Amino acid sequence: MNLKQQAAKHALNYVQSGMVLGLGTGSTTAFFIDLLGEQLKNGTLTDIKIVPTSESTKKRAVGLNIPITSLSEYQRLDLAVDGADEVDPNLDMIKGLGRALLREKIVEIHTDQFIVIVDETKLVNKLGNLGPLPVEIVPFEHQAHVYWLNTLGCRAELWLEQDGKPVITDNGNYLVRCWFKQGISNPKVLARQLADRPGIVEHGLFLEMASQVIVSSKAGLRVMEPKT
Amino acid sequence: MNLKQQAAKHALNYVQSGMVLGLGTGSTTAFFIDLLGEQLKNGTLTDIKIVPTSESTKKRAVGLNIPITSLSEYQRLDLAVDGADEVDPNLDMIKGLGRALLREKIVEIHTDQFIVIVDETKLVNKLGNLGPLPVEIVPFEHQAHVYWLNTLGCRAELWLEQDGKPVITDNGNYLVRCWFKQGISNPKVLARQLADRPGIVEHGLFLEMASQVIVSSKAGLRVMEPKT
Repeated sequence: MNLKQQAAKHALNYVQSGMVLGLGTGSTTAFFIDLLGEQLKNGTLTDIKIVPTSESTKKRAVGLNIPITSLSEYQRLDLAVDGADEVDPNLDMIKGLGRALLREKIVEIHTDQFIVIVDETKLVNKLGNLGPLPVEIVPFEHQAHVYWLNTLGCRAELWLEQDGKPVITDNGNYLVRCWFKQGISNPKVLARQLADRPGIVEHGLFLEMASQVIVSSKAGLRVMEPKT
Repeated sequence: MNLKQQAAKHALNYVQSGMVLGLGTGSTTAFFIDLLGEQLKNGTLTDIKIVPTSESTKKRAVGLNIPITSLSEYQRLDLAVDGADEVDPNLDMIKGLGRALLREKIVEIHTDQFIVIVDETKLVNKLGNLGPLPVEIVPFEHQAHVYWLNTLGCRAELWLEQDGKPVITDNGNYLVRCWFKQGISNPKVLARQLADRPGIVEHGLFLEMASQVIVSSKAGLRVMEPKT
């Protein structure tokens, strides 16, 4: 069992029969979905419904006969489980390199408990130290949004597929990747700037959202919680 | 010449040959576009390019042989002209009942001067006194966004076409109309709440954006400017 699987397996301890779960997107969450499907199949868990955060997660869950629901049926979720691209010591995160940040954020603000599963390689002192911050933008006048993002102290580039065409999200928008050479000095201020800007649909800063972060490493598992 | 036309005609005084203009959307702006096309045709104005804020404005301009450009060609516009649904004494506005608020806001934050043209029926003491505030939302889990909007002290309803299907914007999103029975008590606070919320793409509060508001009435024209 690799490190991602170990974190995913531990997250299952938080799941109880009868829960409505938000399910994230990405390779670590995929392991969680597979394990969840297994436990439903063998009867360890029963009466679970999930709200998916992407078409790919939905497809995977449907393939495992996990019942799908939506926020229109359940305004509050019991638990959401998702991976992250970077986690800092405050449990603030960069997410979205799995291309699903908007749906993830929509679902994950509706949960009572949000469990994040990562391996230790995702832990950083400062967000932006590992990789880019993804930002979802509207296609209309997209060059103007990329231009503006480049004024924020980062190198911002429209995210392209191998064939040179823009990556298109499940919502029909484009994604920009923003590299901060020295990391993101003030995530809160940056989040505010991005939220206020017309043409920016959503960004990959997930601040003050995680209830627990399960971190797997060769030395074992540990659970980080927000400082109170 | 009706009141809308009078305001539109006065706005032409601000246009000079060689300018790049942002062009809004709606019935008052349509008069402006027609007059602009006329002046280009008869040679009163030359070398004008425009950035449209909707497919309908683009179509109208193309029909009048007005050259189209975009923000990728011109990062800054000399002037933008648009109507408004409501204008308060601070020149803060509600816009977007022409269904183009997102593209309008994107274009109009890129202009050096923003002229708003209205007839006197659009003047209010408090925004929200005349009609609803339109809000553009992502279709994904749209009921959850409408539900949340209803917690903000308004009656929020998904905007439907005559046939009962959701209105779809040029950007592929849905629109919600929010009625504030007593008007909007603090537009700045509301704008912040809406900007911060995942799933809300943009809203119709245009705050501190107008350079001049041209108001036409039976008594004549007047130009309002922001208090400094």
